[in-house]
Amino acid sequence: MASVKVRFEPEGKTVEAQPGETLLDVASRAGIYINSLCGGQGVCGKCRLKVKSGSVESSSKGLGFLDRKEIDAGFVLACQSKIKDQDVEVWVPPESRQEDEQILMTDNILHYDQPETSDQEPASAGISYYQPLSQKYFLNLPSPTLEDNISDLDRIFRKLRKRLPETRLQSDFSCLRGLARLLRDNNWKITATVHSTEPECFQLQSLEAGDTSGLNFGVAIDVGTTTIVAQLIDLRAGKVVGVEASHNQQAHYGEDVIARMIFACSRGGLDPLKNAVVTTINSLINSLVVGSGLAFDDITSFVAAGNTTMTHLLLGLEPCTIRIDPYIPTATRFPWVYAREIGIQGHPRSVLHCMPCVSSYVGGDITAGVLACGMNDRPELSALIDVGTNGEIVIGNNEWLVCCSASAGPAFEGGGIKCGMRATKGAVQKAWFHNGRLRYETIGGASPRGICGSGLIDLMAELLAAGVIDQAGKFATNAHPGVRVVDGISEFIVAPAAESESGEDVVITEDDIGNLIKSKGAVLAAMKVLIENLGMSFNDLQKVYVAGGFGAHLDIEKAVIIGLLPDLPKERIQFIGNSSVAGARQSLVSSFAYRKAEAIAKQMTYFELSVHPGFMNEFVAALFLPHTQMELFPTVRAFLNERAASRR
Amino acid sequence: MASVKVRFEPEGKTVEAQPGETLLDVASRAGIYINSLCGGQGVCGKCRLKVKSGSVESSSKGLGFLDRKEIDAGFVLACQSKIKDQDVEVWVPPESRQEDEQILMTDNILHYDQPETSDQEPASAGISYYQPLSQKYFLNLPSPTLEDNISDLDRIFRKLRKRLPETRLQSDFSCLRGLARLLRDNNWKITATVHSTEPECFQLQSLEAGDTSGLNFGVAIDVGTTTIVAQLIDLRAGKVVGVEASHNQQAHYGEDVIARMIFACSRGGLDPLKNAVVTTINSLINSLVVGSGLAFDDITSFVAAGNTTMTHLLLGLEPCTIRIDPYIPTATRFPWVYAREIGIQGHPRSVLHCMPCVSSYVGGDITAGVLACGMNDRPELSALIDVGTNGEIVIGNNEWLVCCSASAGPAFEGGGIKCGMRATKGAVQKAWFHNGRLRYETIGGASPRGICGSGLIDLMAELLAAGVIDQAGKFATNAHPGVRVVDGISEFIVAPAAESESGEDVVITEDDIGNLIKSKGAVLAAMKVLIENLGMSFNDLQKVYVAGGFGAHLDIEKAVIIGLLPDLPKERIQFIGNSSVAGARQSLVSSFAYRKAEAIAKQMTYFELSVHPGFMNEFVAALFLPHTQMELFPTVRAFLNERAASRR
Repeated sequence: MASVKVRFEPEGKTVEAQPGETLLDVASRAGIYINSLCGGQGVCGKCRLKVKSGSVESSSKGLGFLDRKEIDAGFVLACQSKIKDQDVEVWVPPESRQEDEQILMTDNILHYDQPETSDQEPASAGISYYQPLSQKYFLNLPSPTLEDNISDLDRIFRKLRKRLPETRLQSDFSCLRGLARLLRDNNWKITATVHSTEPECFQLQSLEAGDTSGLNFGVAIDVGTTTIVAQLIDLRAGKVVGVEASHNQQAHYGEDVIARMIFACSRGGLDPLKNAVVTTINSLINSLVVGSGLAFDDITSFVAAGNTTMTHLLLGLEPCTIRIDPYIPTATRFPWVYAREIGIQGHPRSVLHCMPCVSSYVGGDITAGVLACGMNDRPELSALIDVGTNGEIVIGNNEWLVCCSASAGPAFEGGGIKCGMRATKGAVQKAWFHNGRLRYETIGGASPRGICGSGLIDLMAELLAAGVIDQAGKFATNAHPGVRVVDGISEFIVAPAAESESGEDVVITEDDIGNLIKSKGAVLAAMKVLIENLGMSFNDLQKVYVAGGFGAHLDIEKAVIIGLLPDLPKERIQFIGNSSVAGARQSLVSSFAYRKAEAIAKQMTYFELSVHPGFMNEFVAALFLPHTQMELFPTVRAFLNERAASRR
Repeated sequence: MASVKVRFEPEGKTVEAQPGETLLDVASRAGIYINSLCGGQGVCGKCRLKVKSGSVESSSKGLGFLDRKEIDAGFVLACQSKIKDQDVEVWVPPESRQEDEQILMTDNILHYDQPETSDQEPASAGISYYQPLSQKYFLNLPSPTLEDNISDLDRIFRKLRKRLPETRLQSDFSCLRGLARLLRDNNWKITATVHSTEPECFQLQSLEAGDTSGLNFGVAIDVGTTTIVAQLIDLRAGKVVGVEASHNQQAHYGEDVIARMIFACSRGGLDPLKNAVVTTINSLINSLVVGSGLAFDDITSFVAAGNTTMTHLLLGLEPCTIRIDPYIPTATRFPWVYAREIGIQGHPRSVLHCMPCVSSYVGGDITAGVLACGMNDRPELSALIDVGTNGEIVIGNNEWLVCCSASAGPAFEGGGIKCGMRATKGAVQKAWFHNGRLRYETIGGASPRGICGSGLIDLMAELLAAGVIDQAGKFATNAHPGVRVVDGISEFIVAPAAESESGEDVVITEDDIGNLIKSKGAVLAAMKVLIENLGMSFNDLQKVYVAGGFGAHLDIEKAVIIGLLPDLPKERIQFIGNSSVAGARQSLVSSFAYRKAEAIAKQMTYFELSVHPGFMNEFVAALFLPHTQMELFPTVRAFLNERAASRR
């Protein structure tokens, strides 16, 4: 069928679309971020758009979220509106935009499709997909009488059953203490926080005086080896209302995971590491609470996503056996725990769930990533690449998932790079040559302080394309006036001292480039070994999701040029940012999503690279820009040839 | 069909039986106590008998519990062997007898039938009826390899699933801490204690080094207002291995429930009462542990049965609203809790379940009693009468249960009686006139110290039959040389000072008899109001189970003579002793029984006597021996007339 044009305002972006596609899908492809909590089910009402010209075919589902006036004005739900055979112009209102686009360490997750099979649907009609792990219910209870003389607890359960039919309701014992007085002192008006502990099983988590149901917040935490990111979520609206990030204070005890494991397994080493990560998290929570004018008591729930070792350290579990053949973690699925037991600040009865892990070297961050990109829900073959200190790769679809892990080093997070830094204010996040001069853009438009992952990728690709470095990552002699040699090492001045915040040059060195090549080589080699072991090649991948803390943006084309990503058509590759925190957030907001993550972790098959004889060869072959086998990167080869020709 | 004779050895008792009856049923009717943990399901193998002459029809079920030699010798399971049309002689071996027949504060519960409906059967084939609330499993785990590299926790779960198929397995978070080291330090040999938290749902409760599965003990506790009884149960065998009883130390703060509630609800009153009952229980546990040579760590689980107020106080819940119109408890079903949280001593991860209550005035002791006597499993109309400080009555069958409660006072527990005492060593537990002289029997054959409930009932009936007291409970003038007047109050010398332990006369006074009449009157009146409100009369009751701390024995005929129990054929009335501790024990030993208790509590309808206009009239009418309406007690009337005539 002939494609039509869809124009998005206020961006002014126009993309081609096929009749039958939903506006939400088209927006996603166009890079227009639209809120969607429910995954396109028409049950959250967050993806409202206004159709300005042309018309779409809207299903009746979700119409309840729009009032008469809005419908007359042309408002529709993006997920419930399909393109017809005509061009359309739509306007995305501010409230439907992804919040905090400016905030770093966020993610570009739009939505994920629901599985087609009905057996994964929530069984109870009364529980919507949008049921946070901890939900608050204001209860205005009738006073007891001689005729209506059930116990206080049963009175609460009776009321809750109207909201949560066909579920099992239990109570934490602590909710009983002082309950009689709580109810009577507050005229039978209380707020119950209910915790989804199992499918269709809910537990009274806490009871509070009066109506506090307007304040139900959760914190989604990406527990990275290098960086910890925490998002404060208004669970009522499913909205991100704050985000904070900082270095993991565990770095005092070791730069990388291995060093931390060794420290943790020395005598008395576990507690300091646990305390360091808890302290880091608490300082982020404190900033979030202060910044939003909330109280700790307003936080009812936490979901943490981290690699297997980080999850063990957070929970105070010894990670020692993870490091030693045969690489066994204490657990991959973790029972929920009261946050207070771990030392995390929130409501005294707030709960902490950790995202389930797959194995010692594929952690909850990856499970969260798969959940966030939704590759497990779709039939097409997809890959998820998470580039952190470890590079993890998942390949699969709605029927199977395999994964592997390769040690990538911290280079793309700014570690081991002379002027490397994480993606915060002042980091060079974009760079390009303009008339032979390097231009750059920093986060927040501030004076440059260093270079973050996306900036490093841009720089390598630009330096390569401009012939300033060769395919081995070595600086070519006299290729550019920005190149100089300091202490015997070539480097390129990205921002001169006069422009930088510190008053010193911001540079990228040949050693930096060498480290980055090793990092990207490890990731690509792992991906290649994995897919070839499946009897397939890169070209079979219909979709590649790229996650990682590169920064707020990642130039996909440049990541392909340096050979970090395979040479596939650009539209098949999507940068999804911090998918770890995104999956944690989805789980906080939807207990159904959390159950799905459990299923993902269970389903995923781990492929142990370290015992694979071909990996080292592939790694060595990938230590080139983009790769020693240039036939794997035909587009890049053509591009580099063309640029080289233009210089001659 | 013609009845046959069954003779039980070594008792030498012969009873008539109908072909088709099981040996277990016949033994029960004969008052021969035979172990049966599974309720006659043929799955516990405890009810072994030897057929000495004649033959029975034995089903193949449960034959696995007997070896070839035993079968050849004539051993059968009593529950799986039906009477044929011939006389039989059987021998009950010592191991099949109820343990601790000598021990006081025990119960005469034999077994209870399973419900006929299949929906209450355990769903999983792998879980037998005999699955304690906390069960230990010794796990000899295979060491992990690169090929078998699941997590430590999953390794444990994988092994447990072979024993507990088709169940949900969870872990308490605490089991993860130190797990890696525990497994490796103990060569992968550990013992898992698994706690049944919900139907078909199990939770890892604790993990221990090596094989401790041979030591799994529980404590069943009857938390009475006056007396607390604790039975130590070997959960592996379902055997009572020790029992201890003592006064509830809460008595310091008030004699009866009302006084304790008032104290608990004064400022700071709750903690002392909670601590008093916990201290009492801990001292009993300590005696049990010391007496049996066990360690506290061997105790994995507790089940406590108490009235609603006692349960609240034990758990530290304010009982204040129980006492005040409209009489609302905080809860009637109580979440399980770690015993340590309540302050009870056992394994640090031992769990405490409280038997579910029905209402403010029908508690978990009554639920336990119904469970123990099994009236809820049978179609015939039955009643359970529990005579404690409160008298509780349950009437119903396998389709419905109604209950009520009447304040009986502590007289039958020896409270408010001049020489009253609880049923311990030295208590007069039986009394009778022989040639005009009173004879008595004390518990343990010791010198008399006082009179317990069963002794008081005997005395009243004997004094009435002998014309020493009249039907109003007043001493007749010069009726017996044992009667004297002290301080203006008539009394009867039960044991002269020369025989008693203290060297003072053991007596029963006219005031004592008045108190006992009020107690028995309240119980009978409550029962009468309840059954008449159901449109029935005493005669419709096919079975009356009598529970309470009267002592080890209760003479049913004498309880009828004084009008405590209705005038029914003797075989319809059964004294079952402390059914509260029996129900708690059954729940400890079988999580299925505990679920059944939850269903019983839910099913029972509470009938509030205090608002019933007819109760006070019935109470007044019952303040007579046996009753003012003598037509209600035709047998007693005939007996008293006959005795009176013999004196003339």
